[in-house]
Amino acid sequence: MRGGEFSAFHARAVAAVQAGVARYLGACAPAPRLWEAMRYAGQGGKLLRPVMVLAAVADSGGDLEGAVPLACAAEFVHAYSLVHDDLPPMDNDDQRRGRPSCHRQFDQATAILAGDALLALAFEVGLSARPARRARAAVQVLARAAGPFGICAGQSMDLGLEGTAQDPAAFEQCYYLKTGSLFAGSAVAGALLGTGVNAPVKALTGFGREFGLGFQLYDDIFDQAPGAPGTLLRWWSPQKAQERARAAMERARAHLPRGYVRLKELAYYVEGLMAKDQ
Amino acid sequence: MRGGEFSAFHARAVAAVQAGVARYLGACAPAPRLWEAMRYAGQGGKLLRPVMVLAAVADSGGDLEGAVPLACAAEFVHAYSLVHDDLPPMDNDDQRRGRPSCHRQFDQATAILAGDALLALAFEVGLSARPARRARAAVQVLARAAGPFGICAGQSMDLGLEGTAQDPAAFEQCYYLKTGSLFAGSAVAGALLGTGVNAPVKALTGFGREFGLGFQLYDDIFDQAPGAPGTLLRWWSPQKAQERARAAMERARAHLPRGYVRLKELAYYVEGLMAKDQ
Repeated sequence: MRGGEFSAFHARAVAAVQAGVARYLGACAPAPRLWEAMRYAGQGGKLLRPVMVLAAVADSGGDLEGAVPLACAAEFVHAYSLVHDDLPPMDNDDQRRGRPSCHRQFDQATAILAGDALLALAFEVGLSARPARRARAAVQVLARAAGPFGICAGQSMDLGLEGTAQDPAAFEQCYYLKTGSLFAGSAVAGALLGTGVNAPVKALTGFGREFGLGFQLYDDIFDQAPGAPGTLLRWWSPQKAQERARAAMERARAHLPRGYVRLKELAYYVEGLMAKDQ
Repeated sequence: MRGGEFSAFHARAVAAVQAGVARYLGACAPAPRLWEAMRYAGQGGKLLRPVMVLAAVADSGGDLEGAVPLACAAEFVHAYSLVHDDLPPMDNDDQRRGRPSCHRQFDQATAILAGDALLALAFEVGLSARPARRARAAVQVLARAAGPFGICAGQSMDLGLEGTAQDPAAFEQCYYLKTGSLFAGSAVAGALLGTGVNAPVKALTGFGREFGLGFQLYDDIFDQAPGAPGTLLRWWSPQKAQERARAAMERARAHLPRGYVRLKELAYYVEGLMAKDQ
């Protein structure tokens, strides 16, 4: 797949996910303010995870339209994790995506509930993906990525709650869990929906983990001051971090089986995006 | 089904759920402290919701053993909701089940993550229920109960975040959502796993909602001082609340289709349990 074809696929995927997200978050009853907070927190991202789901569905020969609920589920899992990570007892971030974080715009109780509600909604929505006979296994992979074997474990390490060693190897492990889990889950879930038990689970898990590490490193370089505690920039210069990010993205692409061309293009696309951000 | 038979069923169901919960919460890697907090929060309850799942499975002719993961999922959803409800920005409760609440025993960040992790684990575990072809629809009902159409909406109203009218009717609606949703979801999920599309969804939803209202009222009478704000005891005397609780349990039983004998006995059992608590 050449870059131009990928751009067309990417635009189509983003439009489908945006429409799905708007539809699923469009409710008001029975708690209008809660839904307002969910919309505030659940819209406006780069949609990398749902696009990864759809790329994996397409690469594995599945039907895009039926997969949109699964893609939206991946985005809702991501949105929940951001809302909760920003809370004062966690990272205590006042800003997210250039505007007040959810608990600053609303209040802490609402932000906790909105995160919970986005997480539960992810699974309700994801389980309506088609074909129904493959939705179970696909959503189960997303649930595992969202929970104590994935994002939650990474966040617990990231906050220093686990007494993890303070060294680059431990931080890389934390990035794999915090960020890599959901990218891996998105790629695997998409392929499970697209092709069922034939999905190359191990290869796509490796792809997603390395993609997540690379993405998190690029994100740090863009976001953090050199030497920032709680990031790999504590040890690595921005130059070294960028080399490592590039190497992780190369390892990610090397994991991909033949034919997973959209996922490969997505990794190039994200590198281009992040390089432009510098 | 006579009371003696129900006692035997109840004992068997409780033992199966306890074993399942211990197994699913038995992990340590990759975040041992997070798992410790999940075990702290996820064990020691009355297991009413998972027993309701198994009663509905048995009443609808399903296989109990394959349903244990679904039952554990209902308990994990309940446990998540308690951990988050107790947090300082929410109900700010220092005690739960006669010991420090999760954020007092650990810390707020750990309690937020443990609740998130229990919620995600609920869906991962629930989706391994058998028969696999019916697990999808069953877990989807649990997810809906856990989210912004159920528990989260009820909690948002309960905390006064929705600007709901301060009158008994609004509080009853809040109880239906906060407590009734997950009982209804448990009964419906169990029957969907037990008998698929033939499940009497509407009747069991009615049963669970009224059961939840009755249970919450009994719980208030046991737990709260007369006149307690944030409960129906603000308007009703304990005697009136008890009459209303009994009436709700009667309405619950009246919803049940023929043959749903274990669910019926469960409602009698809970009334006996709560009356003993007075």
